[in-house]
Order: sequence, then C-alpha cells, then structure tokens
Amino acid sequence: MKKLTVDLPGRAYDILIERSLLDQAGAHCKTVLPKARKLFIVTDSNVGPLYGQRVLDSLSGAGFQTTLYTIPAGEQSKNPAQLAELWESMMAFGLTRTDAVAALGGGVVGDLTGFAAATVLRGVDFVQIPTTLLAQVDSSVGGKVAVDLSAGKNLAGAFWQPKLVLMDPETLNTLPLPTFMEGMAEVIKYGCILNSVFFRFLEIRPSRRQIMEEIEHVLYVCCNLKRSVVVEDERDTGLRMLLNFGHTLGHAYELAGHYTEWSHGEAVAAGMCVAAQLGVRLGVTPAGVPERIADICASFGLPTAISCTMEDYAAAVGLDKKGAGADISLILLEQIGNAVPRKLPKNDVLDLISTL
Amino acid sequence: MKKLTVDLPGRAYDILIERSLLDQAGAHCKTVLPKARKLFIVTDSNVGPLYGQRVLDSLSGAGFQTTLYTIPAGEQSKNPAQLAELWESMMAFGLTRTDAVAALGGGVVGDLTGFAAATVLRGVDFVQIPTTLLAQVDSSVGGKVAVDLSAGKNLAGAFWQPKLVLMDPETLNTLPLPTFMEGMAEVIKYGCILNSVFFRFLEIRPSRRQIMEEIEHVLYVCCNLKRSVVVEDERDTGLRMLLNFGHTLGHAYELAGHYTEWSHGEAVAAGMCVAAQLGVRLGVTPAGVPERIADICASFGLPTAISCTMEDYAAAVGLDKKGAGADISLILLEQIGNAVPRKLPKNDVLDLISTL
Repeated sequence: MKKLTVDLPGRAYDILIERSLLDQAGAHCKTVLPKARKLFIVTDSNVGPLYGQRVLDSLSGAGFQTTLYTIPAGEQSKNPAQLAELWESMMAFGLTRTDAVAALGGGVVGDLTGFAAATVLRGVDFVQIPTTLLAQVDSSVGGKVAVDLSAGKNLAGAFWQPKLVLMDPETLNTLPLPTFMEGMAEVIKYGCILNSVFFRFLEIRPSRRQIMEEIEHVLYVCCNLKRSVVVEDERDTGLRMLLNFGHTLGHAYELAGHYTEWSHGEAVAAGMCVAAQLGVRLGVTPAGVPERIADICASFGLPTAISCTMEDYAAAVGLDKKGAGADISLILLEQIGNAVPRKLPKNDVLDLISTL
Repeated sequence: MKKLTVDLPGRAYDILIERSLLDQAGAHCKTVLPKARKLFIVTDSNVGPLYGQRVLDSLSGAGFQTTLYTIPAGEQSKNPAQLAELWESMMAFGLTRTDAVAALGGGVVGDLTGFAAATVLRGVDFVQIPTTLLAQVDSSVGGKVAVDLSAGKNLAGAFWQPKLVLMDPETLNTLPLPTFMEGMAEVIKYGCILNSVFFRFLEIRPSRRQIMEEIEHVLYVCCNLKRSVVVEDERDTGLRMLLNFGHTLGHAYELAGHYTEWSHGEAVAAGMCVAAQLGVRLGVTPAGVPERIADICASFGLPTAISCTMEDYAAAVGLDKKGAGADISLILLEQIGNAVPRKLPKNDVLDLISTL
C-alpha cells in the first residue's frame, strides 16, 4: 500500500492507495473515526451499483451503522437543492456531531458531499473514496468542496479537509474511456507544472493500458504534488493558483462548447497546449514545449486545440465583467515541470491569442 | 464609544457600541475592509424600512458600492432555499472574494447572512449590524451561523467570525416589547452563569426604561462575557456549553408550545427558573437562588414556569432518540454567577422534574 500524509496543522490526514482497498474501508475508517457510530455514505447512480455494496459491507463489518444515499450521476446534481436534501437526509438518519459522512464516487459526489459534511451540524468528519481518475488525482485532495450556482461552477462552498482519502485504483477499470481521458489531462498537468521527470514517465507510456500498469505510482506522484501545493496554500491565496495551468483558456473552451461539447479535461488539455504557445510568444516558454504537450495530449485522445470565439476568450479572462481588474494572472511554463504566474493585461492576452 | 476586541488568533475583530453608530457604518467598514469595493447588505422586512436607508447612505458615503436585499421577517426565512437565493443574488451583484457581506437585523438575518458569507465563493468578509437585544448580546458575537432544517433549528451552518460588529443601542428603541423582553432573558442568563455583580445590577433596575438608561453598559458586559467564553472555546467543544443554561429545559417549552406559543427568550427564562430548582434538589444550587432568578424574570414580564408534558421534556433531553447516550450534560448554578456542567442520567432528570 502507498500512503501519503497531508500535513495540515491540526488536521493532518492520510491518502491510502491500494488495489481492492474498497474492501478495507471499514477497518481504515474505524482507525480515523474512533468515536463515530454512524456513517452516511453518498454515491451516484453510476458508481453505487458497481461499488456501493462492497463499501457498505466493509463498513458494516467494522461495526458502523450505515446508509447509502444515491444522487443522479452528473454535474447537474451539484446544486443547492440537492445539498439541502442531503442535509435533511443526514438528520433523518440521526447523524450526530461525532458521526461522519463519506463520498463514494467522482468529483461531483465528493464536492457536494464534502460541502454537506462541512456544514451539517456545523461540520462533521468526512471521508473521501474517489472512484474516478480526476477525483483521485485532483478533487479529492485539498479540501475544496462546493456546489454550482446559476452564475457558474463551485460558487458556494467551503474548505473542509477529509479525515481520510481511500483510493482503490481498480475502480478505474470500469471508467468509460472519455472519463479516464479527462483525468489524464490533470495527470499531464502535474508533469507540466511541477515535475519534468514525471512528464517524461508519461511520454513513454502513451496509452491507458500502460498507465494502468503503473497506476499506483501515477496516483502517488500526482497526489504528492497536489499535497505539496495544498499544504503551502490551503486557502488558495497564492501557490495553489499554479494548479490552474490550462484552466483559464480551458474555461473559454467550456464556454464555447456550452459545457456539453467538451469535458473539463478536454478543455484543459487544449488550454494547456495554447497556454504553452502563448508562453513561447511571450518569451517565457522555450520552443518545443508546446509540441511535447500537444503530443502527449494527442496520445491520450485529448484535443490540442478547440475552436473558440474571441467573445468566449474575453468572458473566460473576465473582460466581460465591468469593474473587474484590467490584468489577469496567467500560469505559464518556464520549462516542463516549472510553472510561474504572470500578470498580464487582459487585452494583450486576447491580442496575442488572436495571432496564434 | 465602547469597544471590545474578540481576540481569536488570526481573526481578531472589534465590537463597537455607540448611540447613532449606524450613521458611522461606512467609516468603520472602510477601516476593516480596505480591499472591498462592494458590500451586499441583507436586512428583513421589519428592519429595512426603519434603518436600511441610513446604513446604505453611510456605506455609499464611504465609497462602497452597495445593495440592500430584504428577506421576510421571521424565523421561517432561515431556510436552505432562502440561503440559495442569497447566494445567487450575491453573484448577480458581482461580489468577488475581496468584497464583503453585511447583516442588518436580528438573529435570523445575522445567522442566515453569516452562513451565506461563510460559503459564497468559499467565504467572504462579513459585518454584523445587530438591531435586536438578543442579537446584540448573543447571536452576533461568536461566529455561529446557520439555517434551520425540518428536523430542527440551526442544523446546517458554519463557524464564521465577522470582521466587525456594529451595535447602535438606539435601534432597541423601536423593538416591540416582547422582542425586547426576549433579549432580556439572555441578559439575565449572563448574570446567572458568569457575573453575580451584573445580576445584582439587573435586580435593582427591573424595567425596560432603567435598562435602556444603562444600555451601553449592559451590552458591553454581556458581549464581554460572551467574548471570554468564545475565545476559550470557539468551536463549541467545552466551555461554550455554559451558555446553554436554561436552554435544555427551554427547548422542552418551545416544543410544548409548538414554537409559536412561547418565544425562545420566554422558554429560556422558564428553563433557567426550573434548572435552578433542579440544582437545589441536586444539592448543587443554594436555596434562594431559584427565587431570585424567578423574581428578575417576572420583573421583565418573562414566564417563570411553563406547563409541559413529560413527553416534551423527554424529547428535549433526547430520550426519544434511539441510540443517543443515556446521560445529559445539564448546566447548573453553584451560585449566582457561577455555572457548572453536570452529567446526569436523563431518566433521573425526568424523575426529578416530575417531583417539582
């Protein structure tokens, strides 16, 4: 088993990575939640039928009183009304301040459940059991939890660290290909911004099969990198912004596709490729870097460019909002494995994009 | 002007108490919110017409871009749907992470608005401008924010400290008598649990008129006592439970009256009187104490006993919930000004109550 400790003062927690870990959920939860009698588990309509019973069996076997609450799969479940339903259901289950809540699923389940855990009874303990690649390498680590509002994603939420993160890489075997690829965009991102050796590791394993052969290592490296950033900047006021590499332009592509044509991962992949090209034009990124990023994205079936109007680019950098500042912090690469934030006039960024 | 500092590490904030302070809101907010451009102000349909424009004028005069959002007056506004509406309205107003939210009103406005501030954009700065006696001496200080669920009050919320609390005692002049009396129950409570000199001060001023003549002192003493408890126990895991004196039995009376017959303050007043009698029977509270508490409650028109079934008492101590523990921590008085928690078997408490 691989183990990482996210060493936040007073709220340190472990990330455990092991095949078939779902069947050990009970024992591990018992260790970190010695006072909890009840565990309220949230999953979605995709994941519940696949893994719900195994997790329930393991938790019941460890003596927890459990219930499994299933939300409809998909981003549209991450809304305030669903949050309120979770709160009510947790109280109807008889949850107390010493009990706990667990999320079994992808980022939507984790974000929504984590926000409910952060707020029900003003906060109860929380366990993440992420089952998608994206959730395992990104959203389950770091404590950002939220719901979407009509004005945008993740606009109401909290910082609420889990007590434990359990990752069973075997859950990735049942992921549809597009969902796996979406996670790969974030995996590639970690190489780009923080670790050139890991980027090289990915370059020479350009397929799902090869990644899955080394999946414990991939998860360990990504979580270790995210951990190092989160420990430095839990509340997202500085260093954590490096994780946004590819995301500002990616946001433009999500807008361009009305959030349906392209997944978040596909949009981020194209965003990273174009951000690298911008970096070259600005003299920050060495020549050749955009091509390496595009090659690795393409090898995983991710787009390297997405057509997008200048209006969508303008909205993504916030030029459509009156009163917002004139500059934007864009994350650029000084080289593979080394990202830097650069404050640039939004209009200059748009001008440059229009010449690419 | 009277000033208190709630000295929480990294999040210290001031409580300012002064007549006509509403007209100085802008200058004081400017000092504590130097980066904020926008202020989203929440009030209710009672308070807005009385004081909304004065606060808006002061804030606009200090250069803030403001909006006043009015919720229907009453506890029923403290619900998840109203919270979601606040979130959406804050985003529609263009609130950013460096902007702030203010609550102008009583406990309902403060609790709801504070929870919205704690969670919109994962937390923005928050200013409390309490206008009822209950909010000034209790709910605006300490950082507990929440909405009600169908299973009970304050079941979803957060700990979110304000950046500033502004108390204008003149707002108490427009309070209906029952609302003023409700606040007096908590004022009396502070004397009972923490300060016998203050209790004596109240005993010799047994009318609203006499209290209002010394209102700055009353607010200062109460906030200072609450501050001392909150600083020791921000997250409500120990000392803060002393503030629950009279509240467990009070909860029984609220249940008995279906939350409509008796206000929270009335229920707490009767709860304090009966808790003092229990204390005498248990050999903790000296004889004579229940009578002093009953006298002072009666002088402010508060009930000293409320008829209640044993079923409602059982529900209030949690005997109706299967799986809950067999004991309850009851707050008792060793003397006026000195409260102690006592763990007692719930059944013993009920038996004792039935003999009173």
